[in-house]
Formats: sequence, C-alpha cells, structure tokens
Amino acid sequence: MTQRIKGVLSPVVTPFKADLSPDPQRFVAICKWLLSQNCGLAVFGTNSEANSLATDERLMMFDALIAAGLDPSRMMPGTGCCSITETVKLTSHAVKAGCAGVLMLPPFYYKGVTEEGLFRHYSEVIQRVGDSRLRIYTYHIPPVAVVGITPGLIERLLKAYPTAVAGMKDSSGDWNNTRTFLDAFAKSGFDVFVGSESFLLANMRNGGVGTISATANVNPAAIDKLYREWKNPDAEQQQAKLNVTRETFGKKYLMIGALKAGIAIYANDPGWAKVRPPLLELTAEQKKTLEAELKAIGFTMPGLKRADAVTA
Amino acid sequence: MTQRIKGVLSPVVTPFKADLSPDPQRFVAICKWLLSQNCGLAVFGTNSEANSLATDERLMMFDALIAAGLDPSRMMPGTGCCSITETVKLTSHAVKAGCAGVLMLPPFYYKGVTEEGLFRHYSEVIQRVGDSRLRIYTYHIPPVAVVGITPGLIERLLKAYPTAVAGMKDSSGDWNNTRTFLDAFAKSGFDVFVGSESFLLANMRNGGVGTISATANVNPAAIDKLYREWKNPDAEQQQAKLNVTRETFGKKYLMIGALKAGIAIYANDPGWAKVRPPLLELTAEQKKTLEAELKAIGFTMPGLKRADAVTA
Repeated sequence: MTQRIKGVLSPVVTPFKADLSPDPQRFVAICKWLLSQNCGLAVFGTNSEANSLATDERLMMFDALIAAGLDPSRMMPGTGCCSITETVKLTSHAVKAGCAGVLMLPPFYYKGVTEEGLFRHYSEVIQRVGDSRLRIYTYHIPPVAVVGITPGLIERLLKAYPTAVAGMKDSSGDWNNTRTFLDAFAKSGFDVFVGSESFLLANMRNGGVGTISATANVNPAAIDKLYREWKNPDAEQQQAKLNVTRETFGKKYLMIGALKAGIAIYANDPGWAKVRPPLLELTAEQKKTLEAELKAIGFTMPGLKRADAVTA
Repeated sequence: MTQRIKGVLSPVVTPFKADLSPDPQRFVAICKWLLSQNCGLAVFGTNSEANSLATDERLMMFDALIAAGLDPSRMMPGTGCCSITETVKLTSHAVKAGCAGVLMLPPFYYKGVTEEGLFRHYSEVIQRVGDSRLRIYTYHIPPVAVVGITPGLIERLLKAYPTAVAGMKDSSGDWNNTRTFLDAFAKSGFDVFVGSESFLLANMRNGGVGTISATANVNPAAIDKLYREWKNPDAEQQQAKLNVTRETFGKKYLMIGALKAGIAIYANDPGWAKVRPPLLELTAEQKKTLEAELKAIGFTMPGLKRADAVTA
C-alpha cells in the first residue's frame, strides 16, 4: 500500500471563462503552481464551487489535470454529491486515475437524516466503486452542507470498511469537535485534516495529519512550513502569522470571491476573479481594499504567473 | 399563449428497482393513475427524491413518461440544481417537450447567499434556456433547501422576466409567508401553489391557484375535489378530512417512506416501498401500523393497480 496523503492541501478555486464555463488552462496553471509550493490538490471542494459545476464539468476539469501530467497521488478530488450514482461516477473516475483519495460530502439535500441512512449511503458508494485503492475522507462542513458527519457514523464505517475509510476533513470551525474525532479515531490510523489552517498547530499537536484550507489557494508555502515545523520553537508565531493572512482574505469578504480576487491581482489576470452565481465577485471597491490590505501585511504569491505564461 | 397549469399536482414519488435504479415501468403506471385522478405531475420534487437522482436518471425517467404518451401539458418537472449548467439542461429538455412549467429550486449548497446572487442565477438560467415557452415556478422549501425565495427576489425577477416567472410553490409551512407572496404578487398573475393541502382552502380564498403536495401521491381525488369545490358550504369539512389523511401519512413517519409504503400496500406491490439512501423505508412494524391506521380512517386508492397489470 502506498503512503497516505498528508500535509497541506488546497480546495483549488475553479477558474471560469467570461461565459462562465470552467477554464482548464487557468486550472492547470494554478494547480501546477500549488504543487510547486508542496501543496496537494483537493480539487472540487466547497471553495472550488464544485457544487456549482455539473458532473461532466468536473470530469472535464479533472481530465485536464491528468492530461497535463499532474501527479494524481497529490490529488484528493471532492466527489460527494446528493445522489449515489453521481458520487460513484466521480469517485470511480478518481480512483482509476490513481488519486490519493477522495473528499466525500454526505448527501446534503435532505436535512435531519439518520446515521443509518448516511451509513447506507456511504456503504452503497464503497461497494459500487468496489476498488481496493479507494480512500475516502469524509467531509464535515455543517455551516454549508448542514448534514454532518458524526463520531457514531465514523465508528460504523471504520468497522465495516477499515481500508476504504481513511479520514476526514473537519470544517465545523469548532475545535472541540475536531478534538472529539482525534481522540476517538486518530490512533487507529484515521487521518484528520482541519478545514482551516487556524487550527493546524492544534491539530498537529493532537494527532492530526494536516489541513485542507481555503487559504492554501493563496498562502500554501507558509502553511506547509508550519506543517513541517510544528515542533519548532517558533510554531506559535508561525501560526499567528498564518492567521493574519487568513483574516485578511476571510473576514470582510466572502472567502471564495476574495481568493479569486487575490489570484487575479497577483497573477495579473483580472479574468480570474469570475465566480458562478449564486456567489458574487468582490466589487471594484472591495478588490481595491483587499489589495491594499494584502500589501500592508507584506503578502506575496511567489512564482505565480498568468496562465498563458505558464503554458507558453 | 396556452392557459397556465393550476389545481392539484403531485410531486410524484420515484420508484426504484431492487438494485436502486429508477424504475420507469412503475413510474409510468403511477403517473397514469395520478392523471386519471385529475392530478398534475410535478415529477422530480422533494418527495420524488429528485436530488438523489443523477441528471441522466431524471432525463431517462422523464423520457419514459413522454414515450408512454403522457401529456406534458400536465407536467411541471423539478429542474433546479445547484449548478446553472444542470439546471439549464433539465429545464430546456422540459420546455422542448412541451411541459406546462418547471419547478425550480434555488441553488442550495451555499448558505447565506445574497438576493443578488440568486437573481443572477435565475437570470442566467432563463437567458440560457432562451425559450418563450418557459414558465418557472420558484420553489421555496426552507426546511430542506435552507436557501429560500424572498419577496424581493420575486419582485426583481417579475420585473426582468414577466413571462418566464409564472409562480411559486411555497413549502415553508408558514401561512404568513404564503400570505405575503399572495398579497404582493397574486393579482399580477403570479400563481402561488401551497406545498401542503392543509393550506389549500386558505390559499384558494386568498388568490392562490392550488397545491403541489406530497399527499397528492396517495389522496389526489379528494384534494382535487376541494380544489374544485372550495366555495361550497362543506369546504371546511373537506379540508378537515384531508388533514386527517395527511396526518396519518406524515406525523409519525418520514413522509416519503410512508407514501411509498402506502402505494406498496394499495397497489399490492411490496417493491414500491424502496427508497434511496440517505432516506429509509418504513420498518415492517411501521408499515403494519400505517396499514392499520389507514384502514381505520377508511382510506382507499381507487383504481390503483400493480404496474405490471397496467402495462399488460
């Protein structure tokens, strides 16, 4: 068995062309840059607007990465849809391509569903994919999906599918919740990623394996540095500095619009700012303020280039 | 312009085969029976487990109805997905087939989105479909979708697309909310359907046009009778009787499992009871209790037959 993926992963923001179609050229370019920063590719996450894409659009964008020669062992695509059939389609595709794992939302349309119902959903998916290489990271993000992952569900899944169920991403924003999962399952090899690098140091100190965080789209090297150096004496300082950058992107603006605006600024490529409805781009005023604030904290994205310069 | 669809519609429950694949034979049979009860077909709604189906599965099931010769002018398929692209695909397909309208959820993954973002989503869909026959009924079901439809959104949409935006289904379960939309928009020809027949009489008395209700799957004739006779002296009594049936299906059990169990019982076809995870079928015990309770209130489904008897 190959080693599990760990460390820092980015829920890669999805670029759109002027007509709102997904843009494989810009996508390949940002993914190459992220890999160059030692950042894994959790493509098709919440920050990727994955649920604003059709299944076919996700497949097309994924295939563009593979066609460009990017390493699937550094990828953990999001594949959890409301339907078993679409979840299986995306998951099988990722597993066959050699991905390190998949990040799997629970079915999120019906609210108040039972643990038994969610267990059956994940079971059905695992059995249909039917591939010993499958590694599922369950995705707990109650502020968005509302439907969440409970310790009881993980206990049942680990018992039934100890190889396929590899870990989770906890985007609850609640350290007590992360701690509960770490205490219950980390020792048995269940890999917990925190959904924000603001919990990275705490996660590493308590048996976690890294972070899959929005801000890894723009600040991957510094987050990876803390991941590697969390035992160093300056770890708290590194954590504090990461938090400042995260707050600059996340506090006043909706994160996704801000991340894309940041990339647009630092790649000198205004087209990057585009989002699909129902999300909104930053306003011109917000972009200006963001740019000034980023400059004020000395933020940079070293090595980032326009997509047409990368592929040229 | 043809007349708008009004009256009673059923969010038709979706039958599954033993392997959980959608079953067109049972689907055609139940839809034929519903039409025979003067009930319109709001296929692919919440009670249809539509979001537990892939886009391709919805298209296959829809095409089965058309191939069986069912009248599209009695259909209002649900077509609202989280992505613009899938919403447009399903909506265009329905419009081209001649459907009376489409029932359109807002994109429901991201929570806390703005009215502007939702307006852009619906605008983009309407412009991409680009067909003067399009009639959209917006779908407000905050207990499930969380993301809702506001009066401000409807006002903007009606101003921009007075022909395409035809009405709404209000499944808030809050009569004050329905009343707000009726008072604001009914006079200008915006057709409000209530999401439960328990509000049917109130809706008709206040300018509404009918109901699209879970229980119309099993009790369509009685609901249609009140729709036609709401000005009669016994309307309150009819309403009270409808409520008793609804409570029998909806109170103690999850509605979707109970509706399917009811059809399984009255069509003498146990296979009908199947649901897709994350939902659950009724337990054997619950089915027995439901059957006894339905018998006790004198409930029947006159003319309902096993699917294999319909097509034979």
